[in-house]
Amino acid sequence: MSTYFPNISKIAYEGAKSKNPFAFKHYNPGEVVEGKTMKDHLRFSVVYWHTMCGQGADMFGGPTAIRPWEAGKSGLELAKARVPVFFEFAEKLGAPYYAFHDRDVAPHAVTLKESNQWFDAIVALLKEQQQRTGIKLLWGTSQLFAHARYAQGAATSPNAEAFAFAAAQVKKALEVTKELGGEGYTFWGGREGYSTLWNTNMKRELDHLAKFLHMAVDYAKQIGFKGQFYIEPKPKEPTKHQYDADAAACLNFLREYDLLPHLKLNLETNHATLAGHSMQHEMEVAGASGALGSIDANTGDLLLGWDTDQFPTDVYLTTQCMLGILKYGGFTTGGVNFDAKVRRESIDPEDLFHAHIGGMDAFARGLKIAAAIRADGRLDQFVKDRYASWDNGLGASIEAGKESFASLEKFALEKGEAGGAASGRQEFLENLINEFI
Amino acid sequence: MSTYFPNISKIAYEGAKSKNPFAFKHYNPGEVVEGKTMKDHLRFSVVYWHTMCGQGADMFGGPTAIRPWEAGKSGLELAKARVPVFFEFAEKLGAPYYAFHDRDVAPHAVTLKESNQWFDAIVALLKEQQQRTGIKLLWGTSQLFAHARYAQGAATSPNAEAFAFAAAQVKKALEVTKELGGEGYTFWGGREGYSTLWNTNMKRELDHLAKFLHMAVDYAKQIGFKGQFYIEPKPKEPTKHQYDADAAACLNFLREYDLLPHLKLNLETNHATLAGHSMQHEMEVAGASGALGSIDANTGDLLLGWDTDQFPTDVYLTTQCMLGILKYGGFTTGGVNFDAKVRRESIDPEDLFHAHIGGMDAFARGLKIAAAIRADGRLDQFVKDRYASWDNGLGASIEAGKESFASLEKFALEKGEAGGAASGRQEFLENLINEFI
Amino acid sequence: MSTYFPNISKIAYEGAKSKNPFAFKHYNPGEVVEGKTMKDHLRFSVVYWHTMCGQGADMFGGPTAIRPWEAGKSGLELAKARVPVFFEFAEKLGAPYYAFHDRDVAPHAVTLKESNQWFDAIVALLKEQQQRTGIKLLWGTSQLFAHARYAQGAATSPNAEAFAFAAAQVKKALEVTKELGGEGYTFWGGREGYSTLWNTNMKRELDHLAKFLHMAVDYAKQIGFKGQFYIEPKPKEPTKHQYDADAAACLNFLREYDLLPHLKLNLETNHATLAGHSMQHEMEVAGASGALGSIDANTGDLLLGWDTDQFPTDVYLTTQCMLGILKYGGFTTGGVNFDAKVRRESIDPEDLFHAHIGGMDAFARGLKIAAAIRADGRLDQFVKDRYASWDNGLGASIEAGKESFASLEKFALEKGEAGGAASGRQEFLENLINEFI
Amino acid sequence: MSTYFPNISKIAYEGAKSKNPFAFKHYNPGEVVEGKTMKDHLRFSVVYWHTMCGQGADMFGGPTAIRPWEAGKSGLELAKARVPVFFEFAEKLGAPYYAFHDRDVAPHAVTLKESNQWFDAIVALLKEQQQRTGIKLLWGTSQLFAHARYAQGAATSPNAEAFAFAAAQVKKALEVTKELGGEGYTFWGGREGYSTLWNTNMKRELDHLAKFLHMAVDYAKQIGFKGQFYIEPKPKEPTKHQYDADAAACLNFLREYDLLPHLKLNLETNHATLAGHSMQHEMEVAGASGALGSIDANTGDLLLGWDTDQFPTDVYLTTQCMLGILKYGGFTTGGVNFDAKVRRESIDPEDLFHAHIGGMDAFARGLKIAAAIRADGRLDQFVKDRYASWDNGLGASIEAGKESFASLEKFALEKGEAGGAASGRQEFLENLINEFI
Repeated sequence: MSTYFPNISKIAYEGAKSKNPFAFKHYNPGEVVEGKTMKDHLRFSVVYWHTMCGQGADMFGGPTAIRPWEAGKSGLELAKARVPVFFEFAEKLGAPYYAFHDRDVAPHAVTLKESNQWFDAIVALLKEQQQRTGIKLLWGTSQLFAHARYAQGAATSPNAEAFAFAAAQVKKALEVTKELGGEGYTFWGGREGYSTLWNTNMKRELDHLAKFLHMAVDYAKQIGFKGQFYIEPKPKEPTKHQYDADAAACLNFLREYDLLPHLKLNLETNHATLAGHSMQHEMEVAGASGALGSIDANTGDLLLGWDTDQFPTDVYLTTQCMLGILKYGGFTTGGVNFDAKVRRESIDPEDLFHAHIGGMDAFARGLKIAAAIRADGRLDQFVKDRYASWDNGLGASIEAGKESFASLEKFALEKGEAGGAASGRQEFLENLINEFI
Repeated sequence: MSTYFPNISKIAYEGAKSKNPFAFKHYNPGEVVEGKTMKDHLRFSVVYWHTMCGQGADMFGGPTAIRPWEAGKSGLELAKARVPVFFEFAEKLGAPYYAFHDRDVAPHAVTLKESNQWFDAIVALLKEQQQRTGIKLLWGTSQLFAHARYAQGAATSPNAEAFAFAAAQVKKALEVTKELGGEGYTFWGGREGYSTLWNTNMKRELDHLAKFLHMAVDYAKQIGFKGQFYIEPKPKEPTKHQYDADAAACLNFLREYDLLPHLKLNLETNHATLAGHSMQHEMEVAGASGALGSIDANTGDLLLGWDTDQFPTDVYLTTQCMLGILKYGGFTTGGVNFDAKVRRESIDPEDLFHAHIGGMDAFARGLKIAAAIRADGRLDQFVKDRYASWDNGLGASIEAGKESFASLEKFALEKGEAGGAASGRQEFLENLINEFI
Repeated sequence: MSTYFPNISKIAYEGAKSKNPFAFKHYNPGEVVEGKTMKDHLRFSVVYWHTMCGQGADMFGGPTAIRPWEAGKSGLELAKARVPVFFEFAEKLGAPYYAFHDRDVAPHAVTLKESNQWFDAIVALLKEQQQRTGIKLLWGTSQLFAHARYAQGAATSPNAEAFAFAAAQVKKALEVTKELGGEGYTFWGGREGYSTLWNTNMKRELDHLAKFLHMAVDYAKQIGFKGQFYIEPKPKEPTKHQYDADAAACLNFLREYDLLPHLKLNLETNHATLAGHSMQHEMEVAGASGALGSIDANTGDLLLGWDTDQFPTDVYLTTQCMLGILKYGGFTTGGVNFDAKVRRESIDPEDLFHAHIGGMDAFARGLKIAAAIRADGRLDQFVKDRYASWDNGLGASIEAGKESFASLEKFALEKGEAGGAASGRQEFLENLINEFI
Repeated sequence: MSTYFPNISKIAYEGAKSKNPFAFKHYNPGEVVEGKTMKDHLRFSVVYWHTMCGQGADMFGGPTAIRPWEAGKSGLELAKARVPVFFEFAEKLGAPYYAFHDRDVAPHAVTLKESNQWFDAIVALLKEQQQRTGIKLLWGTSQLFAHARYAQGAATSPNAEAFAFAAAQVKKALEVTKELGGEGYTFWGGREGYSTLWNTNMKRELDHLAKFLHMAVDYAKQIGFKGQFYIEPKPKEPTKHQYDADAAACLNFLREYDLLPHLKLNLETNHATLAGHSMQHEMEVAGASGALGSIDANTGDLLLGWDTDQFPTDVYLTTQCMLGILKYGGFTTGGVNFDAKVRRESIDPEDLFHAHIGGMDAFARGLKIAAAIRADGRLDQFVKDRYASWDNGLGASIEAGKESFASLEKFALEKGEAGGAASGRQEFLENLINEFI
């Protein structure tokens, strides 16, 4: 078997003191944390789109990446050439999962029929590699945003034929995801939104989107696909506004159209911050509604206003993520999916390793820190104590539905002024977190 | 009767060519537009808090405003002194409505009982002035964010006693709003959120907030208050995050807790933009759910990150607002409420007139332009035509629920590629709007 | 001669009441405003890059634009095919100027020598078309940001060879600009900045940039190019940070390296707002230093964090621009250059017309409004009066250098408290502007 | 001597494993790092304004802080009462420095004369406490933004009398700073900017500001004050725009008016991020011009658009700060000044300790990490190597001024294409930093 990364061996765990940049310093797959191995907690996934298809192009410049295996190839031939490279990469990294869009692994052809054939040809190769390596598909998805046909939306296009093609594409992708044993299926509606409200009938578009998702739910049932559906919030980019703007907007939509039983959220840090929220916030919003499904692990630059999809290395962020995941019971179908890309200036194949190793180590640290904070117990106890007035007496009576405005006014008039205020202690809590970083 | 604005007469309509800064150039109350007078369309409302209580202080400096009627007064005496000034102001302006918080019109006293007595004393004066002038109460509300007792929330406080005091305050404010014939009641949860997630149980807080609002709905029913309840979105400031972050977050909350039948949204431009949305967007989101209730008319500065509450003078903005209002049937209980304040440097009483005259004229222009765009019909027709593929054939069949992924795949495979794409024509539409500005 | 826009005639002025979307409603080239024709005031310029090379691709999707003249062509052949289309477009529009980058009009070849030859081939065609149509070159520039060679900077690259190639490219572009009678030459340093400070020696990079610009100044002198040099501020995108971040940062750099005598600023609205400034602010900063050279006319979306390069249609914006231009004496070498692109959904060739017509009309309105505000005189007089205390007495004495901390303390101690505060009247002034919109 | 913090002993160093929240875990004052004690490296300073005068009020609510020593006091009496509390606080904390505004330590009186007398009364107390405790004054400053007189600017006011009062105030503050042995004097121009450009003559205002600063420089010379002058950048808030917007804008201004020899920059993290820059960026900009003077240590919330002035606890941030400080030679007159305030919900006196302990520990960690990164050498070496092409051959020749566009074109034509590109390795470098966190 050929090697595409001849200078890189399988990444091993060497411990925090290692200076080997191609070793894990924190991610020790078999190490047990809170009763499970790190591997089972984190369920790392590598994405096909950035890792294999990312070339370093941006809005102001062309490709920069050096990818020797691509030399002289294009179209289906190039698509085929990427498959073994990808699996060698994921295998050397020790990532147990991967994720793809239909059109990342195989390109658009001229007709849908031919596109499907190309897709099938690649799926056969993916399946072979999955079997060879044991790497599994975390989730599949359809690329419904790059083709000109979807320029004004896929399920929300003003053109019903675009809806039909999107439906056909998702149908096929669901079948493939099932065939490859995918544990989930994700909807990210990159063009499901608007560029200007002047030309948009928002209500009608949302009705169409709901209809589309119901068709997907129905079709999954029909073919026996048991994977989890996810919807992935992002507020904007490429469009001016996407309907799945943030966790709350997604939940509102899912509730309105009776879709909440069928979809969970796939949250991404960079999307959260573009929406003006912290990832921690989005995880709480999703978690409180039982809809925290999976995460796209990356980071944005909060001083930039677009999706930079950088690899996550900030241990505060990964600690927050893992605290949220552990709080809501750990991943079941979801995982830590690196929807992240190397910088345009990071042109070497080995930069793909640096990037993923750094992200995996950062999440491993986040997991260990989160577990330590939970074991320590002071943080949880602080929060519990803060709401103690609701555990009995007046608060418990309110929670039990025994109070009304009239009874509470009586209480307040008798007391004159409310007692019981305690400091919020934000600085103390921030210091407490720092004890564990 | 005394006059507090001796140099200002009742503001009259003089037409666009007038150079009199104390005349309306566009707002002609009796002029009929789309079948109703401008006065009835716009239902202008002046707010007590900024207009009477605003002193020009900010986080970096003290009061600057010259308010001769306040000289030497404080506490209840000052509160009493403000009432006739406010009504003289609103009367000279020709504003048919006003709005207040309980603690704007009367200050907090040491005990709740005394606070209520003070409030009653002022309410008597307000009632008298309402009768004298014919000015009506658009909506009342409670100030549940300024007092230290609410520093960590009112309905969402970790302290149940704070909840009780908030309940007592809203109970009283509902009674007063009913007594004064208020057409609505607004909840703006300035402290209903968090400063840090480290100390917060978001789910428990949201449960409490829902319970609080249900109590309010029940109490309104009990006392026969028929006014419309509103919830007002704002994403942040004063807290790090407010639960009523934007229209979608409010709707999600209202749906989750079965409150959607009872509350509509009171949307504010500056709050919309702080949430990363245009006001036009928020109006569509609310309107599409039948929840567009009223608007707080102001503007922020999109290059600043806090609530500047400036008077709205941008005719593009007011046109968008009035197009939205007309599209969804016009105001019923709601109105154009100037939740806006003069700049700290605009220290003279007459600046209050400049500010409101400018805002009213800008909305009057917005109304006339919106009506002209609707009468012209090209914009509406463009949008209708853009979705023509959904009105019959394939689109109609999808909307009618007659299609599935399987039938759509069949269609797509046969067609090979989607037809029917048409230009979105954003630039043409922007030019079209400009024809009417 | 072929026509590429068969359905579009030369755009004529039809007046504000026209409903013809392919007519000017405000831009009447020969109409005299403040002593000059509108054409001479506005000096409209069309850009080659967006207009000819823009295909509608973005970071999430491929080309969408329908451009019949491109069918089946690529490379130099395509480049040649675009030239007559561009000039037909600009001619029908009545734009007196255009602007280009070297690599827009002719593509990169494999070697610099061949690139230069290709460029020469196109320059011959441009020259021919300039002679045929009378359209002139507002400014030329080099594209030093798209090629992989410049991924880490051109003049600020860590690789000295990239500097050399950039130098060679600018040398050639200066020669061509001179040959084509270009009235200016612009530097926009899209990669002159950093992606991360961890790998960056900022001081050394800035030294190199200064050296590069001095070489350009020297070479222009050597070949007798008398056009104006411009530097164009932009804070970020494509990089994390560009050194020419805003007007102040550019001026600081130009002062530090003795370049201020040689370069003026080319300001762009979308770049201004990405830097957190209004265009009006940037114009004042540049104007106050005598460095206001030219403007790139477009607009961003203040709720989006990237360069949307939309066509400017907001009359408030164009009024501010033209007030600034008139205040600082009008354009000499500069002009209103439409660095703007049609939306990805605006796929038809005719959308290029809608877009430019709208922008030109918006600027024509801005010019007329600005002239009317100046003729009215109230705004200028207000500002003058506001500083009256500096025109004589204490203020004049301070300005004359006759006061010191000691003399001013004496004054203040005697007075006890400062008098003379007057309202800033922001709301009145905003209303005043609205009188003219 | 009374104690105002009876439950808190002098804070001691207990090491990273301590769970005592009132102990340092990282700041060990006498520990030597890179040849100096931590105390001498960090030169921690406590600010009077937030620590003593902050009450928890914000734009939407009143004071919340519990400060027993203030009970029943106001005016000068309150001012006097705060002095020993402040010094007990700083002493228990072990902070070697403090900073104040004139009007924090003593309030505005009705006349300037009386204000000066009050100030003198407090200065006597400060001096006594300085002598008792050995705590020194890092820098003094004047509060020229809170009083109504400065609503439209101090040195940049349209009212010359406001300029005179500001001059008198700074004169006095300089004298006091000298008397108290202050090592610096800071200008932060909170109102030196504009609320609207419509009423503003920017150039004239900047001329006045420059004149004001020259007077300050002259007066310092006259009285023999040898402390360092600082100017502190902030882009906005309270005004729409402040002239000292960011490091580059300050440097531009200082260069234009020949003030660069006299002032250095006092950089603040929260101000940097409000300007759209990282603190690391601002430090590089200042450092590269030899103008890095001191830092105001705090942090903003990048998802909020106003100055939150939170205590810095992010170790990545403090590492960047200390790397910058060490790179440019360490503090001489400057220090780590905690311009930070406890949250409104952190109402207890002990929260002041939590906050400062956390900030000091975070900076101590930052110092140790920065020193370790420097000792390790890989980061510095990477940067050095990245620019190796400039150290000899072509690059050295360019730097030496031996090349021109002509010679470089010759080189490029011969080479055909640039060689020498190397990966920017951002991900590797981020991982490298993480090795030390």
